[in-house]
Amino acid sequence: MSKGFMFVCDGSNGAGKTTVIKGIEAHLISKGYEVVLTREPGGTEIGEKIREVILDPNTPQMTDLAELMLFGAARAQHIEEKIKPALEAGKIVISDRFDAATFSFQHYARGIDLSVIKTINDLALNGFKPDLNIILDLDPEIGLQRVQQRGEGLDRLEVEKLDFLKRARDGYLMQAKAAPDSFTVIDASYSAKDVLAQCLQAVDARMAQK
Amino acid sequence: MSKGFMFVCDGSNGAGKTTVIKGIEAHLISKGYEVVLTREPGGTEIGEKIREVILDPNTPQMTDLAELMLFGAARAQHIEEKIKPALEAGKIVISDRFDAATFSFQHYARGIDLSVIKTINDLALNGFKPDLNIILDLDPEIGLQRVQQRGEGLDRLEVEKLDFLKRARDGYLMQAKAAPDSFTVIDASYSAKDVLAQCLQAVDARMAQK
Ligand SMILES: Nc1ncnc2c1ncn2[C@@H]1O[C@H](COP(=O)(O)OP(=O)(O)OP(=O)(O)O)[C@@H](O)[C@H]1O
Ligand SMILES: Nc1ncnc2c1ncn2[C@@H]1O[C@H](COP(=O)(O)OP(=O)(O)OP(=O)(O)O)[C@@H](O)[C@H]1O
Ligand SMILES: [Mg+2]
Ligand SMILES: [Mg+2]
Repeated sequence: MSKGFMFVCDGSNGAGKTTVIKGIEAHLISKGYEVVLTREPGGTEIGEKIREVILDPNTPQMTDLAELMLFGAARAQHIEEKIKPALEAGKIVISDRFDAATFSFQHYARGIDLSVIKTINDLALNGFKPDLNIILDLDPEIGLQRVQQRGEGLDRLEVEKLDFLKRARDGYLMQAKAAPDSFTVIDASYSAKDVLAQCLQAVDARMAQK
Repeated sequence: MSKGFMFVCDGSNGAGKTTVIKGIEAHLISKGYEVVLTREPGGTEIGEKIREVILDPNTPQMTDLAELMLFGAARAQHIEEKIKPALEAGKIVISDRFDAATFSFQHYARGIDLSVIKTINDLALNGFKPDLNIILDLDPEIGLQRVQQRGEGLDRLEVEKLDFLKRARDGYLMQAKAAPDSFTVIDASYSAKDVLAQCLQAVDARMAQK
């Protein structure tokens, strides 16, 4: 059994994942832990190259299956090269998105067959599982407003329609309901300070269990 | 049923695939066909970006599974975006490598579990199959000499050991033996002119069958 912990921060676009992760990192560092921040798709040199291919807004012709396999390739590399070694060294890994996002966006929102996603994801995971998925739950309309206020361009996945994002949000909630031991849902409509406080409580509770 | 034909030219590194493909193309054009040349990994804008990731000599840390999924992603995109539309338009597609190479290099040479490769490849193919795989069979030592005479650098897969390349060669021969209707093996140790003549005979015979 690995000595570290892996937390995933996931949820709608603009829900506050990146903001919250920085707060969790500071909290854990102050408690003396070594923290590794990472993200999906990406997290490794190879994964970041794959991320660029996935998110390129100039290739809308990408097929669902090609996209799924690119996510799978990046995830397999991520786990073996970065996550497992960090956990074995007793570090805390916090990933900005992980496999729950694949199910939410590719299955619940886009409608790709669950069994295809599960086949590829199971191969990529090879038995691995994060300790806790923290889902920041937010109306995607508010999330998009937050992203737009941040003032960057939108990537290939962010330009998806609102209806799509609503189905993805429901997908997170359904996954959390189906696996309450691996998921915690945080209402992300509150202030950044309040959302972080909720997240830290979940993190501390999970670490106390082990 | 599609109106076109798909030929794959495959085999050891430096066996003469690219040379032969140009000859087959000229032959078919002279007979009035529209010919689409393509390659794997690659063949589409997305696939060529994936090819760069796969072949990058600076990332030897790529895991077997990540590599397989990258091949799968590129293949899924290749079939849907480029191959099927060309075949439906009655064109002849000639691909420089295809799925037989994945089995030869990843399974027979590198030893990755056959079932994992088959799972990913079956997903990518989604029922599709080339009409004929033309395997250029050559002692990999001679193939490497030919490549070196061509005077380019070697990519991440070409720097593999000779023993590895010998197992890949045997892998092509075993696949051909197991599926004689989809494979033809050409002795590529002869002159480029003689090898091409053999290939054209196989191409014409296959097209006469349909
Ligand atoms: N609880 C909050 N209330 C209001 N604004 C917030 C809150 N949390 C974060 N923000 C702001 O909303 C914007 C999006 O936040 P952040 O980048 O953390 O979201 P994200 O979930 O990482 O977005 P993305 O999906 O694009 O990665 C930022 O400008 C951030 O400062
Ligand atoms: N039958 C042959 N006899 C001798 N030399 C050949 C023959 N066919 C091709 N060559 C030469 O060998 C070199 C490799 O040929 P080619 O590039 O066609 O092989 P390839 O199988 O496409 O190689 P790669 O695996 O690197 O793509 C070239 O310089 C080519 O001119
Ligand atoms: Mg973010
Ligand atoms: Mg070639």
